[in-house]
Amino acid sequence: MDVSNVKALTFDVFGTVVDWRSSIIREGEALGRRKDIKVDWAKFVDAWRAGYEPAMARVRDGELPWTKLDDLHRANLDQLLVEFGIGGFSEDEIDHLNRGWHRLDPWPDTVEGLNRLRRKYILATLSNGNVALLVNMAKRAGLPWDAILGPEVARHYKPQPEAYLSTADYLGLQPGQCMMVAAHNHDLVAASRLGFRTAFVARLTEYGPNQTKDLKAEHEFDIVAESFVDLADKLGC
Amino acid sequence: MDVSNVKALTFDVFGTVVDWRSSIIREGEALGRRKDIKVDWAKFVDAWRAGYEPAMARVRDGELPWTKLDDLHRANLDQLLVEFGIGGFSEDEIDHLNRGWHRLDPWPDTVEGLNRLRRKYILATLSNGNVALLVNMAKRAGLPWDAILGPEVARHYKPQPEAYLSTADYLGLQPGQCMMVAAHNHDLVAASRLGFRTAFVARLTEYGPNQTKDLKAEHEFDIVAESFVDLADKLGC
Repeated sequence: MDVSNVKALTFDVFGTVVDWRSSIIREGEALGRRKDIKVDWAKFVDAWRAGYEPAMARVRDGELPWTKLDDLHRANLDQLLVEFGIGGFSEDEIDHLNRGWHRLDPWPDTVEGLNRLRRKYILATLSNGNVALLVNMAKRAGLPWDAILGPEVARHYKPQPEAYLSTADYLGLQPGQCMMVAAHNHDLVAASRLGFRTAFVARLTEYGPNQTKDLKAEHEFDIVAESFVDLADKLGC
Repeated sequence: MDVSNVKALTFDVFGTVVDWRSSIIREGEALGRRKDIKVDWAKFVDAWRAGYEPAMARVRDGELPWTKLDDLHRANLDQLLVEFGIGGFSEDEIDHLNRGWHRLDPWPDTVEGLNRLRRKYILATLSNGNVALLVNMAKRAGLPWDAILGPEVARHYKPQPEAYLSTADYLGLQPGQCMMVAAHNHDLVAASRLGFRTAFVARLTEYGPNQTKDLKAEHEFDIVAESFVDLADKLGC
C-alpha cells in the first residue's frame, strides 16, 4: 500500500461521516411529541431511506432532470406521510422535518478524526447530498471540510463517474492523488475503477441494530480502518 | 440598513481577502534571487495583473471556451516572460511562479475578522479564482470558508449574473439572504443589481502605493467597513 501521492481525501457523508438513522429518528420523535402523535419512527425513517436509491436512479437514468437531494427527499416524504397516515403537519413542519437531513449528528470519532486528517490532507465531500445540506450540516456539527464538491456540482449522482472525476478535477488533482473514504463497498469500488485510492471505514450500526450489509471490506482497498481516528493513525496524521 | 435576513456572506478574494500584489512580488523576488536575475518585480506583477481582465473578457465574450484562472494566468505569464526578456526558468519554476496565486497572504485583519464572522454567517468565496487555487490558498492562510463556490462552478466569470446567482442557489438562499463583500465598487454594483446585500471594505494599497481607484465606496452600499474586524463589529459578530 503506497499512498504517498495522496493529497486529498474525498468523503462519502451519509453513514460514513454522520449517523443519519438515529438523527432522523430523533427528529421524528421530537416532532411527534410536539404534535402528540404516535409513529414508529424507526420504520418511517427506514422507509424514507429506502426511497433514496430509486429516486436517484430516476435522475441517473434521465427519467427526471437534475433534481437536488433536498427535493428528492421531500417528494419521498410527502408520499410517506400519506402511506403512514400522518396528517396535520403544517408546511413549515414538513419542511423542518425534511431539513432534518441538514442536522445529522456525526459519529463519535468523526470530528476528532477529521481535525487530525486535515492537518495533512485536503478534505472534500463527495456525497450525494446537495451543497446547502452539506454546508448546513458541517456548520452545525463542526465538520472541517476544505471544499464541498461532488454530485450537485457535477450534476451527476454517484456512482456515475462524473461525480468522482469532477471532484478530482476541481481540486486540480489526478484521481490517483485522491483517496475515497466510505463505509460502503460499492462506492469504493466505483471510485477505485476511476483510479482513486480507497479507505473503508466500517459503520456497523448505520442501518440499525440488524444491519446485514457493509459489515466489512469485501475488496482489496488501500486502507481498512475502524474509525476516522484509526484512519488518521494509519495515514500518519 | 436592515441586514437581518442575511444568512451568508459571499467574498471577493483577490484584493478583498488577500494582498495579491505584495505576495506575488515576494514570490518573484525569491525566484529571482535563486536564479540570480534582476527583474523589476513590481512592474512585472502589475503587468501580469493588467492581463487578468482582458483574459476573462475573452471567456465572457465566448472568444475562448471556459478556461480556469490558473490557465489564464499561465498564458499571460508565458507571454510576459518573453516581453520582460526573462529566460532560463524550468517548467517547474514557471509552474511554481504561476501557482504563487495559490499562496497569497491575507491582509492583517482578514483571519481574525473571518473567524468572528463565521460564528454567525455562512462564509463562501465568490471569486474568479478557480476552486483548487482557493482551496490551496485557504489551507495555507487559514481562511475558514464554509464553501468554495462561484465562477468556476458556475462556468461564468464575474460580473456575469450567473456567477452570483449560482452561489446563492447552491447555498439554498435567495440573493437577498446573501451579502457580497468586496473592495471593488463594480463587483458590489453587479451583485446589488441581482438583489444581494453589499458590504464595501476599502483596501487602500491593493494596487500599490499609488492606488487611484476603489479608495472609497462610490455607491449606497448596505455597509461600509474599514476592515474585516470592523465588518464583524458592524454585523454584531
